[in-house]
Amino acid sequence: MAGNGFGTQFRLTTFGESHGQAIGGVLDGCPAGMQLDLVAVQADLLRRKPGQSALTTGRQEADDIHWLSGLFEGKTTGAPIAFIAYNQDARSDDYAHLEQAFRPSHADYTTWAKYGIRDHRGGGRSSARETWARVAAGAIARQLLLSLGMEVSAYVERVHDIGMESAPAFYPRESVDAHPVRCPDPQRAEAMSARILEAKKAGDTVGGTIVVVARGVPAGLGEPVFDKLQGTLAHALWSLPAVKSMELGSGISGTFMHGSEHNDPWIQNDAGDFLTTSNHSGGIQGGISNGSDIVIRLGFKPVSTLLKPQSSVNQDGETIQLEGRGRHDPCVLPRAVPLVEAMVLLVLADHWLKNKGAQL
Amino acid sequence: MAGNGFGTQFRLTTFGESHGQAIGGVLDGCPAGMQLDLVAVQADLLRRKPGQSALTTGRQEADDIHWLSGLFEGKTTGAPIAFIAYNQDARSDDYAHLEQAFRPSHADYTTWAKYGIRDHRGGGRSSARETWARVAAGAIARQLLLSLGMEVSAYVERVHDIGMESAPAFYPRESVDAHPVRCPDPQRAEAMSARILEAKKAGDTVGGTIVVVARGVPAGLGEPVFDKLQGTLAHALWSLPAVKSMELGSGISGTFMHGSEHNDPWIQNDAGDFLTTSNHSGGIQGGISNGSDIVIRLGFKPVSTLLKPQSSVNQDGETIQLEGRGRHDPCVLPRAVPLVEAMVLLVLADHWLKNKGAQL
Amino acid sequence: MAGNGFGTQFRLTTFGESHGQAIGGVLDGCPAGMQLDLVAVQADLLRRKPGQSALTTGRQEADDIHWLSGLFEGKTTGAPIAFIAYNQDARSDDYAHLEQAFRPSHADYTTWAKYGIRDHRGGGRSSARETWARVAAGAIARQLLLSLGMEVSAYVERVHDIGMESAPAFYPRESVDAHPVRCPDPQRAEAMSARILEAKKAGDTVGGTIVVVARGVPAGLGEPVFDKLQGTLAHALWSLPAVKSMELGSGISGTFMHGSEHNDPWIQNDAGDFLTTSNHSGGIQGGISNGSDIVIRLGFKPVSTLLKPQSSVNQDGETIQLEGRGRHDPCVLPRAVPLVEAMVLLVLADHWLKNKGAQL
Amino acid sequence: MAGNGFGTQFRLTTFGESHGQAIGGVLDGCPAGMQLDLVAVQADLLRRKPGQSALTTGRQEADDIHWLSGLFEGKTTGAPIAFIAYNQDARSDDYAHLEQAFRPSHADYTTWAKYGIRDHRGGGRSSARETWARVAAGAIARQLLLSLGMEVSAYVERVHDIGMESAPAFYPRESVDAHPVRCPDPQRAEAMSARILEAKKAGDTVGGTIVVVARGVPAGLGEPVFDKLQGTLAHALWSLPAVKSMELGSGISGTFMHGSEHNDPWIQNDAGDFLTTSNHSGGIQGGISNGSDIVIRLGFKPVSTLLKPQSSVNQDGETIQLEGRGRHDPCVLPRAVPLVEAMVLLVLADHWLKNKGAQL
Repeated sequence: MAGNGFGTQFRLTTFGESHGQAIGGVLDGCPAGMQLDLVAVQADLLRRKPGQSALTTGRQEADDIHWLSGLFEGKTTGAPIAFIAYNQDARSDDYAHLEQAFRPSHADYTTWAKYGIRDHRGGGRSSARETWARVAAGAIARQLLLSLGMEVSAYVERVHDIGMESAPAFYPRESVDAHPVRCPDPQRAEAMSARILEAKKAGDTVGGTIVVVARGVPAGLGEPVFDKLQGTLAHALWSLPAVKSMELGSGISGTFMHGSEHNDPWIQNDAGDFLTTSNHSGGIQGGISNGSDIVIRLGFKPVSTLLKPQSSVNQDGETIQLEGRGRHDPCVLPRAVPLVEAMVLLVLADHWLKNKGAQL
Repeated sequence: MAGNGFGTQFRLTTFGESHGQAIGGVLDGCPAGMQLDLVAVQADLLRRKPGQSALTTGRQEADDIHWLSGLFEGKTTGAPIAFIAYNQDARSDDYAHLEQAFRPSHADYTTWAKYGIRDHRGGGRSSARETWARVAAGAIARQLLLSLGMEVSAYVERVHDIGMESAPAFYPRESVDAHPVRCPDPQRAEAMSARILEAKKAGDTVGGTIVVVARGVPAGLGEPVFDKLQGTLAHALWSLPAVKSMELGSGISGTFMHGSEHNDPWIQNDAGDFLTTSNHSGGIQGGISNGSDIVIRLGFKPVSTLLKPQSSVNQDGETIQLEGRGRHDPCVLPRAVPLVEAMVLLVLADHWLKNKGAQL
Repeated sequence: MAGNGFGTQFRLTTFGESHGQAIGGVLDGCPAGMQLDLVAVQADLLRRKPGQSALTTGRQEADDIHWLSGLFEGKTTGAPIAFIAYNQDARSDDYAHLEQAFRPSHADYTTWAKYGIRDHRGGGRSSARETWARVAAGAIARQLLLSLGMEVSAYVERVHDIGMESAPAFYPRESVDAHPVRCPDPQRAEAMSARILEAKKAGDTVGGTIVVVARGVPAGLGEPVFDKLQGTLAHALWSLPAVKSMELGSGISGTFMHGSEHNDPWIQNDAGDFLTTSNHSGGIQGGISNGSDIVIRLGFKPVSTLLKPQSSVNQDGETIQLEGRGRHDPCVLPRAVPLVEAMVLLVLADHWLKNKGAQL
Repeated sequence: MAGNGFGTQFRLTTFGESHGQAIGGVLDGCPAGMQLDLVAVQADLLRRKPGQSALTTGRQEADDIHWLSGLFEGKTTGAPIAFIAYNQDARSDDYAHLEQAFRPSHADYTTWAKYGIRDHRGGGRSSARETWARVAAGAIARQLLLSLGMEVSAYVERVHDIGMESAPAFYPRESVDAHPVRCPDPQRAEAMSARILEAKKAGDTVGGTIVVVARGVPAGLGEPVFDKLQGTLAHALWSLPAVKSMELGSGISGTFMHGSEHNDPWIQNDAGDFLTTSNHSGGIQGGISNGSDIVIRLGFKPVSTLLKPQSSVNQDGETIQLEGRGRHDPCVLPRAVPLVEAMVLLVLADHWLKNKGAQL
């Protein structure tokens, strides 16, 4: 299957380059009859927008969504929902010097090796700009899932070596967005912000971790043995740019425990629900959601594009000096929060649809 | 798409329960004309076999592979290759007490919640026994890839808190298999082994990490933006039982670096090849292999089945006392090594086929 | 996607060659909790069995089904259902003279051109023997659909130029199977049978048409614009060997009508159901079932394997004389009836599952 | 898989309604490095455009293609190619009376039954307007295939009962397009045209047949047993609106032959190529192309929308009188010619890519 589509029953196909005409997506399989709150979709997109704060790239894009199809009188019809945003503030000249260059830790070389041709302007298809369409589709999924009692929220847990101390938890959007760095701990947020600006000043970049939590997910989502819930989530999340690590539930710390400590004991509450008294499993057991919060931590690398000079080579193998130019994020994490949510939302919507066929 | 198939051009479908008639798989899309070394396939399967050593479950299964189709005079024909192994040493009585029980951190509850029915014998489909077919198919992929210059090798890097000190590297199978724990560092291997036996004696279990390295992978594999190489690898690897974490290249440690430190500088060697002088990227940039080693670390949780009593509930919500019975691995890692290799091999074979269409 | 799987939510993967160890299939995505009548499955398979009558090949195969997985206490569990039949009466020596030969209108040349290798024994994978697994899976789909009120029945409508006069209709199995030729019109059946035996005596073969009708299909199945119900049905049916034509509803005769004559008028009956007073549409409008009978006619060519000499060439380009040898059907239609039903059943089951996600 | 995508390696996803903002498509998997002749694409689209002649609907749409992504300096880059056309001459008021009505033999009722909601304006998603994107993508496939020596051409063979007498053959576009009815036989074309206008005058419609021939297709395309070349072609072609029948090679007439007459004898020509001296097989044997012309005949029903009154029912079950309004084709065939070509082109491109993995 060609690689620009994701999902089976609830399937997103995306297109567009950083400096092309437009970026966009087609969402196929969204159930009919859902009243779509278009303002809420745009609100989700604003969280990803460049130029939000001093912490992010200075590129200015309205990123207004144009709905092309799939809606009738405000409702989904079962037909594919297509949406685009025009690229408006592309400055391709900023990239002219990169036409033949391979920037370190970018997709320049690999794109050229694979396709034999490369749209170097703004990184072309390998620019994070493509994630716009993921957020748009994720926003639709969010509304579908919300009507079913599911919520997904992510936040920045650590920037460089400045991390929250509290364990992963579900934070509502207002507390996440209270600070532009999108860490719900105000003190840490401020320190993280300072660290990012420090790196930016030095022409450098920093990474860190994001935690995403899905709550209200009913038991039963996931299609073993290959499309286990964590398998599809991993596929989705590792398709995001800059991801270096992923942990589920207890994650790495869980690998240091004994089984007797790690196991999540079952109880039944007074309402007759089966619950676990701990959640080292991160909400998934045997590849299927168990009703507890789904808890995932993702590590992101420091952005590859630096605003200070670096040595590299060009297609002819000549050593070149790369000046830092263009407008770039010194830290990807604040803007990655909505991306992470979007991918989890897309996965849950698809699995929810698939699970309808689990029992006769 | 139903969940028991993986891959598109090189696609494995598996079936079978722990205590059913047989387990097996169908591999569709393997190129024709490949002389298949059946002995080498069986050798790969032996590495996964239960009862190999005191470190693993005592279940005895010959696990002999029966080839049902797809081969003619020792060669692949392009037709689907089907293979099975009969279950011979299943002791379903050991599981009779679990018919209604939900074991902690197992798939018991979630399977029941999803399907409304559960084959409790030996864990049914959620038993790690299903991984047999993955290793068989992976062994075929291994031979395909080897003919193309690609090799995949994994090893146990850490058991509980006893880890190797050297950085991830490619270790040939003989050094990995020199010790039953499958750690190529002899001293550490012995210490790991002791730790496993210690846990076993206590009726408890331990986890740890496995590193897998693919070398000889040509630049160009991976299908952005959703089927990036790391995305498909993540899907594959997270479909394995007990995985809690995954890191690519610099992994978590990379998230603590600055971009200027993390970036992998490009050079061109005398042969005209483009190389990076470091490999924080783990062999993948922009979702496409860059020719360097692909380096992944996976964390595994301590096995959920304990041989000491645990409290839990049954389907009626009654509190029950689970005795530890049956034959189980006190540590999944030594036997997980071939599983991890298999999943990476399957992914690489599929991507290699897909990449044939990248350029006109 | 590799070509030996069909369906998405309800997905069959098949394997096996005419003279290999076994033929079989894996059905993934069958809803859990369905009591499977194994005797009924075997009964469906008996209708496809070789050696049923003088009208079919003399090959003797018990074709007993071996269930390998997916069932627990007689019920489906949601795990993949695997089943095989061993090849017992293969006489590969009958094919030794064909090792290098390209039989006219067979897959010999194309298989060799595509794969560069060919299992010539009994036609290998291109033998109609592979259809066994389709019938087995179709028999499972039949039971699922029957519980939902859907029934599928096919019959031989014409052999060579001897055809029924009555319009396509749903005939219950007992009337179809009353005569070995599987035509529900006893007089015509006898004439058809004579025509087949006449051809057989001459070492020749004949073709004809089969009609298949699905009744009780609820309105709403089909996924426009590419997976319209007739699109998926066409894919399924044209994957059967020997198909030369397909007609839906009014078929070719409909292309000679005016729209005013062809349109199916809507009425509402007393029960409030929307019905059409004619069914030129064949039960599908806009790619979606409308609740009327789905009516399809398929044309089958005369079998390519003759029992009289033919001239041809071999791989070296030499002209050769093919003697008619082996055991073959002089007319494929009687045994194709269950194949046609199976493919329609598989499609309907898949679409029924998909349709669960059509509305919020 | 959601239903608005087609193909695996070369995959088209389409979107858009008759009276929505725009219609469009995303083509994923087109090999990189192909110089795309945009004028040729537009030329293909012009053949499908409404308002071409008195034989077609009077709706006026510029149907200009807007390229949104996937091209760089005129070449394909391996990134998805997105394209749209805005709807400009939609007159939704013409459809106001149909909001609750079920037009006979249209998708009105089935859409409502499936989705519970219906965009009635111009037929919404079920309008043939969606086929615009198919033709655009097909035009890209055409250029890919042409560079590989493959050509696809279709023509109108019969309108109502006025048909060509010559056997199916490959006709170049100029002879097909010499007459607006797209029949390469000038006399017959004129008679067909008169028949269409006669029907139009009576407010009625007519159907007929189209023949499509692909030449230069190398032996080896097709992925048995389910994705045989004719299976995928059937899927593609039956997804077009109004198709009632399909025949491959000898088609229905072949079902009246004896095998000895129907078989295509093999010879080897002086150049060493293997050829058949007849082509009853229609270029496909065992589901794989054999190098001969692929020959398919499709029957189309008379258009359902009449310009004379018809009786029907509305959603409330009330009997209504439908007046013929709106702008519609009295015969779908002339404009269906490019659609048929497009679907064959898409299938061949996908199979050509898949076939690259057939042999080691």
